[in-house]
Formats: sequence, structure tokens, C-alpha cells
Amino acid sequence: MIERLCIIGVGLIGGSLARAARAAGVCREVVGAGRNADNLRLAVELGVIDRYETDAGAAVQGADMVVVAVPLGAIRDVFKAIGGHLMPGAVVTDVASAKASVVEDARQAFGEVPSWFVPAHPIAGTEQSGVAASFASLFQQRRVILTPLPQTDARACARVRALWQAAGAEVMEMPVAHHDEVLAATSHLPHLLAYTLVDSLARLDDSEEIFQYAAGGFRDFTRIAGSDPVMWRDICLANRQAILAMLEHFSDDLAMLRDAITAGDGPRMLEIFARAKRARNRYAHRHTQRQDQDEAS
Amino acid sequence: MIERLCIIGVGLIGGSLARAARAAGVCREVVGAGRNADNLRLAVELGVIDRYETDAGAAVQGADMVVVAVPLGAIRDVFKAIGGHLMPGAVVTDVASAKASVVEDARQAFGEVPSWFVPAHPIAGTEQSGVAASFASLFQQRRVILTPLPQTDARACARVRALWQAAGAEVMEMPVAHHDEVLAATSHLPHLLAYTLVDSLARLDDSEEIFQYAAGGFRDFTRIAGSDPVMWRDICLANRQAILAMLEHFSDDLAMLRDAITAGDGPRMLEIFARAKRARNRYAHRHTQRQDQDEAS
Repeated sequence: MIERLCIIGVGLIGGSLARAARAAGVCREVVGAGRNADNLRLAVELGVIDRYETDAGAAVQGADMVVVAVPLGAIRDVFKAIGGHLMPGAVVTDVASAKASVVEDARQAFGEVPSWFVPAHPIAGTEQSGVAASFASLFQQRRVILTPLPQTDARACARVRALWQAAGAEVMEMPVAHHDEVLAATSHLPHLLAYTLVDSLARLDDSEEIFQYAAGGFRDFTRIAGSDPVMWRDICLANRQAILAMLEHFSDDLAMLRDAITAGDGPRMLEIFARAKRARNRYAHRHTQRQDQDEAS
Repeated sequence: MIERLCIIGVGLIGGSLARAARAAGVCREVVGAGRNADNLRLAVELGVIDRYETDAGAAVQGADMVVVAVPLGAIRDVFKAIGGHLMPGAVVTDVASAKASVVEDARQAFGEVPSWFVPAHPIAGTEQSGVAASFASLFQQRRVILTPLPQTDARACARVRALWQAAGAEVMEMPVAHHDEVLAATSHLPHLLAYTLVDSLARLDDSEEIFQYAAGGFRDFTRIAGSDPVMWRDICLANRQAILAMLEHFSDDLAMLRDAITAGDGPRMLEIFARAKRARNRYAHRHTQRQDQDEAS
């Protein structure tokens, strides 16, 4: 049981985790923190948090679990703000989509990466943002990756794991660098492609007309281009190295396909498309199986 | 009223159009044609067609409306096969995703582009294929683009328009070259990006693990990579010029974003992402409005 859960940054992720923890009955009190008092008042009205502080240092006082759910670019300042105010035994965790940069933020803010800090990343979200978009079931059957360091306290890790499991998530662990590579491939690169495609078409002379003829496939493909630009700027800054490596890998492959199209090389195109279809079907099939298992269990 | 509708290529599109025409009561008889007798027997069993011929020339005899719904790469041969067998006054149309190449196929097969040939393209589909995946409502509230030429007979055009309207579609017209550019932007390029992304990740050493962590955004983004590889090879061959132009435009923009990430240029990234989000929201909003209007009308 968490006596006092402090959520710093009560947006889609922070708000949904607060709702899920309350719904699961694993915390007695939820204190919200953030710089926007209007948003925090809304969070109280919506029943997401019990009360709030606009000062992060004040908010963490007496909290045994602190979740930092602010944009990546604001994490270091939050760490600095809470440093002297944490109660002994408090566990601090985060929800950011890139982990090496957050670990570095912790090192810079606290002098070393503390044993009570557990880097975490729920692979969940919608293209919406803000507490009004939060909902308790956001993490149901979704994966949460913890990236503990050698010095991370095993009990701190277990408490963060228990919180996410109470929210309905499947929790796994992997090294920081591996997390950042996997996410660059499966999340960061697709977002950059969707943003670039929509922007690229929007700047064509006949863009208004072009978007009129966009059908279902295009809508699915570009939905993620509706995501929060500030969050994605921060992710690109924070996970630059892994993203650039994945972008280069992709760009090389796209150039290969372009060459095949230029040459009118049908067999080469067919090879690429068929291999992608097989991989996509394997993946979609496995995902469906996993959902079925989850629903049956 | 169509006395005898001949569908050559009874797959997802051809089968769905046959179902829609029958459901709307705008044709008395539907004859299917294709090279795969098993598929055609299935189409009869499913009630999609009344009877079939495996010879396209035999199938079009006595038909007043002929829809060629075979893959792009097979259209010219079908045109050649039906040339001497069409009844006077018969209208021929197609459903292909690229139009300049089909017009050239008609020119090659018939000696000139006949006045009774109406190039058409329903912007609809799923990542499924085959007659078993066909359904009568596939074209409801979807757009169909006709690309008539100067010599195209206005009455032939009107009959094709009426068929698609009976299927629930909104029919518009545009020049051949413009169609091919618009589709390269909104459909062909997104499919190539999805195929390349999935293939690119599938060939990474840790691809099995990587796909495990792919979340909802990735699934939406890559759904179209499950599309029929042969169809997409044919589209790339048929619409090569427009696709290459759009690919180059996109690749330039992606390189610009890569440079911004390399330089850690946050304001530049924010500008791109915010512009894309605005364009996507404008487009999504307009689309929702259109759907609301359609549903209200």
C-alpha cells in the first residue's frame, strides 16, 4: 500500500496512473504537482488527485512514492526541486520515453544516480494529452519497461513494479541502452515518419485537395502525427543517438526501395513487400494471441 | 439498370462491387471471370456472382457493363482478351490505383483509347484481399475518382458514375496525371513507408524482441504493410514517375529533420512537428465533418 502517492505532472500519463492506482485501491492519498494551477484544479475536480501543490518540493513531502510524469525536458529541474524534500525511504520513478537521458538527469541533479530512483517507461498513450484525456484503464495489458541500474535498490524496484501491475500493466526489465534502441525503432522512428509525411504533404501546393483524397490507410498511418510536438521534440533531443542510428538504417532501406522502383525491378520490390507482410502478420498474430491470453487469464 | 454486369477479377474490390450492385438492385445478372476457377466457385457459393467463365472473352459476351478488377499488371492482357468480344454499346471500366498506365494499356490493346472505356478508381480497400474478404458496404461514403479523357463518351461516364453511386460512393472526376500525383502522395507513399519500416525492423538482429514492444501507434502505422505485395509491386511499376517524385520530396524533408536532430535544433523540430499536427488535425476535423454530413444526409 502506498500511503501518499505524489504525481508530478498530472497529464495523460500521470493522471491515468493516479486514476488506476486509486481504482485498484493501492494508495491512500494522491498529491498532484505541476506549474499549471488551472490544470491541477481540474485534476481535483475530475477526482484524479486529492489535492495539489504548485511547488514540487512541497508536494513530495511525506510521499512514499513519487512519480515524475513531466515532459523529458523538464525532468532535471524537477529532480533538482525535490532533492532536499524527499522523505527517507521514498521511491522516485519516472515515465519518460527515453531512459539514458533521465538517468543522466538524476546523476546531475542528485550527484549520483540514487538507489531509490527506478527509471520506468509505460508503453502506452494516445495522441491526446492533458489530464482531461486521462483514464484508469490506459495501462491495462500494456507493457511497462523498468531499466534499473546496478545500484538500484531491489525493494524500490519491486514497489514500482507493484504499482504498475496494480494499474493492469505487464512489467519487464531491460538495460537502459537497449530500451532506448528498442523504443527508437518501434515508437520514435514511426512518429518521425508520420510527422514528416504529413508536413511534407501539407507543404505541397495542392495540399488542401490532396488531404481530401486521403483514405483509411492514410488516417491510421498519420494518427500519431497528432501527438504533442513538445513531447516529441524532447524525445528527439533526449534519445538523439539511438534515433539517428535508426533513421539512418531506415533511410538506407528507403533508398534501396527507391532504386528498385527507378530500375523497374519488380522481383526486388516483391521481395521487400512480401518480407514486410510476413513480418507484420507474424507480429500482428503474436499480438492477438497475447491479448487472447491476457483476456483469458 | 445493368442487364448483365461482368466482373473480371472477383477479389476484394470486384467482389465488393458485385455485392453492392446486387444489394442496390441495379443489375439483373452478374457474371464473374478470372483465371482461378476455385475462387470463382467460391464467389458463386458466397452469392457474389451468378455464374462464371474462366475465359474473359467468353465472360464479356452480352454484358452491357464490364468492370476490370484484376491487378494492374494483368490489365493489358485482359483488355486484349476481351477486345473482339464486347457487345455494341458495352461500357468498360476499371478500378486500378494508377490511371496513366491503364490508359496506356487501353491504347496498346485497342489501338486507341476507346470512347466506351471509363478509367475509374475507388479509394477504398482493406489490407485483406480475395473474394472471401469482400462486403457490400466497402464503398459506402468512400470516394471514387473517374479520370475520363477528351474522347470518353459522356453517357458511358454517367453509367459508371451511377454504378458507383448505387454502391454508396461519392464520385468525382479529375485528369489522369493529377489522379496519379494525388494517389502517390496519399496512398502509394504511405504504403512504401510502412513496408520499408516493417522490413527495416524485421532485418535487425533483435527484431523478434523489438516487435514485442511495439504499441498501438506502431500497429496503426504498419497495418497497411499487410497489403497484397503483388498489387503494390504493380502499383510501383505503373505509377513509377509520380511515386519517385513524391519519394524524393519526402526523403528531402526527412533529411532536413535528421539534420535538425543531429544539430539538437529543438525550435526547428518543434516547428515541423507543430505544423504537421495542425495539418493533421485540420484534415481529421474536416473528415469527421464530412462523415457527419454524410450520415445526416
